[in-house]
Amino acid sequence: MARAHIDMELRWGDQDAYGHVNNVAFARYLEEARVRVFELGSARERTGMERHFREGATGLKTLVANQQIEYLNVLEYGPSPITVELWIGKLGGSSLEIHYEVVDGAATGRSVVARAITTAVVVDGRTLRPVRLSAEGRAAVEPWMDEPLRFRRG
Amino acid sequence: MARAHIDMELRWGDQDAYGHVNNVAFARYLEEARVRVFELGSARERTGMERHFREGATGLKTLVANQQIEYLNVLEYGPSPITVELWIGKLGGSSLEIHYEVVDGAATGRSVVARAITTAVVVDGRTLRPVRLSAEGRAAVEPWMDEPLRFRRG
Amino acid sequence: MARAHIDMELRWGDQDAYGHVNNVAFARYLEEARVRVFELGSARERTGMERHFREGATGLKTLVANQQIEYLNVLEYGPSPITVELWIGKLGGSSLEIHYEVVDGAATGRSVVARAITTAVVVDGRTLRPVRLSAEGRAAVEPWMDEPLRFRRG
Amino acid sequence: MARAHIDMELRWGDQDAYGHVNNVAFARYLEEARVRVFELGSARERTGMERHFREGATGLKTLVANQQIEYLNVLEYGPSPITVELWIGKLGGSSLEIHYEVVDGAATGRSVVARAITTAVVVDGRTLRPVRLSAEGRAAVEPWMDEPLRFRRG
Repeated sequence: MARAHIDMELRWGDQDAYGHVNNVAFARYLEEARVRVFELGSARERTGMERHFREGATGLKTLVANQQIEYLNVLEYGPSPITVELWIGKLGGSSLEIHYEVVDGAATGRSVVARAITTAVVVDGRTLRPVRLSAEGRAAVEPWMDEPLRFRRG
Repeated sequence: MARAHIDMELRWGDQDAYGHVNNVAFARYLEEARVRVFELGSARERTGMERHFREGATGLKTLVANQQIEYLNVLEYGPSPITVELWIGKLGGSSLEIHYEVVDGAATGRSVVARAITTAVVVDGRTLRPVRLSAEGRAAVEPWMDEPLRFRRG
Repeated sequence: MARAHIDMELRWGDQDAYGHVNNVAFARYLEEARVRVFELGSARERTGMERHFREGATGLKTLVANQQIEYLNVLEYGPSPITVELWIGKLGGSSLEIHYEVVDGAATGRSVVARAITTAVVVDGRTLRPVRLSAEGRAAVEPWMDEPLRFRRG
Repeated sequence: MARAHIDMELRWGDQDAYGHVNNVAFARYLEEARVRVFELGSARERTGMERHFREGATGLKTLVANQQIEYLNVLEYGPSPITVELWIGKLGGSSLEIHYEVVDGAATGRSVVARAITTAVVVDGRTLRPVRLSAEGRAAVEPWMDEPLRFRRG
């Protein structure tokens, strides 16, 4: 029962013409959080998941099959990094659900500005066909499973 | 029962390090499709919806509350524009669900590469509080309602 | 003495928090113009340059060594495409200078909003070492040479 | 004689289809460095320049009139932040030249991957007309002047 924490800088250019962080930028933050956890292994915690999922490590690749983002609050650009909290909400045969809460680092208290779920499918790097997660893969992921998110809508 | 069609150029820079159009770029395409329909009124069809939703027209603003994208196929960069098909899948008191299919323009036949739903909330431009859609707003939207999408996954 | 013309859509997301097209977006437009001329061969004119420069055609690659952009006017997002006018301003042994004027398509009259020069070096695709332009390469480029730009500053 | 140092995270999405950090991303890094120095005052050093240039502080705005970037080396995405070194290379009546070296944080030794100059014009925030730098403005900037860059090409 644990979450990985990824601290991430905002960029002024993440803002749109309304002067707030644009909704598309959040998809970029989620991508960066996944890369840091599953490729670089550079979250605050040493999750070890990158040892199984890093490209080249196993010849596997993970594709985004579905992604849902719920926007809860406006996020303003500033010097404080946001924190993406990331965990595994569900584990299928050859897919996993990555759940996230995006926390505004400038807020007093823990202010969640967005929540999201990515359904990622593990595929063979060459054929792009789904591949069942190995026992080692499941073992790497299981310590990072936590309660699934529930969206307000849909 | 109708959909608006928005033809849209790809950019080489929409690709990521895998050499395909990146998943985040799709969120940008959806945003652009919304702006062209609800602000510019520049879809293939004259939907007239911009007359009600254009900022400044009514002092209203629409915020993205939730967005889900299902990725069905890899999209390759090239000279053919994609077509975003957009319709209203559901109409609430102060919200509307915008449904989309993203069609690969380079494919022979109609190849849907992604499907998506945006839940947009209509708010007062200053207070950012939800505002009930007026009778005129509902009348503008209703001709563009169509069968709701069903995602393969939840 | 000729220029290639590349018509290009703006995106709402090209704007920044000031509500204008952001300076960084212009670098994206120049990249897209180069790709359409040197890779896709999809400018208004059939320049034929892509037959020599397209990756894979010759095993060559072109790298951006230097790029300068002069910003002359604010560009506003809207439905009118901009036109990038592109020509070769200078031809070296293994490099070429690509010159551009970016023309606001919404303006009455021909309004140049930016001018730019990219110094591109032709390299071997594997070693990334500079390679002298062949006689065929020079012959492909020469019809598209035109008067070099002069910037107001620097 | 001093430079401000701005440490900056890379994003996986800064890469292009060649698998390297894209040339356009560098323009984004320069923008972010300027914002952190001239708006946020969040460089490693307390330069104090933001007290004069921050929007709202003085009703002034700075516009990018010209920007040149020289690309010296390929930059690879990874967990190490880059460092943008920023200084004032030249001071005009109503303009200033911001000079930069972009240093690869993953390299052993100090590896400069790009150098750049932005000519920024100080304008009245409403009329967008050039405004002479005040004595206070000049005094804020002068401690951060350093030797101007010389590009290899034009």
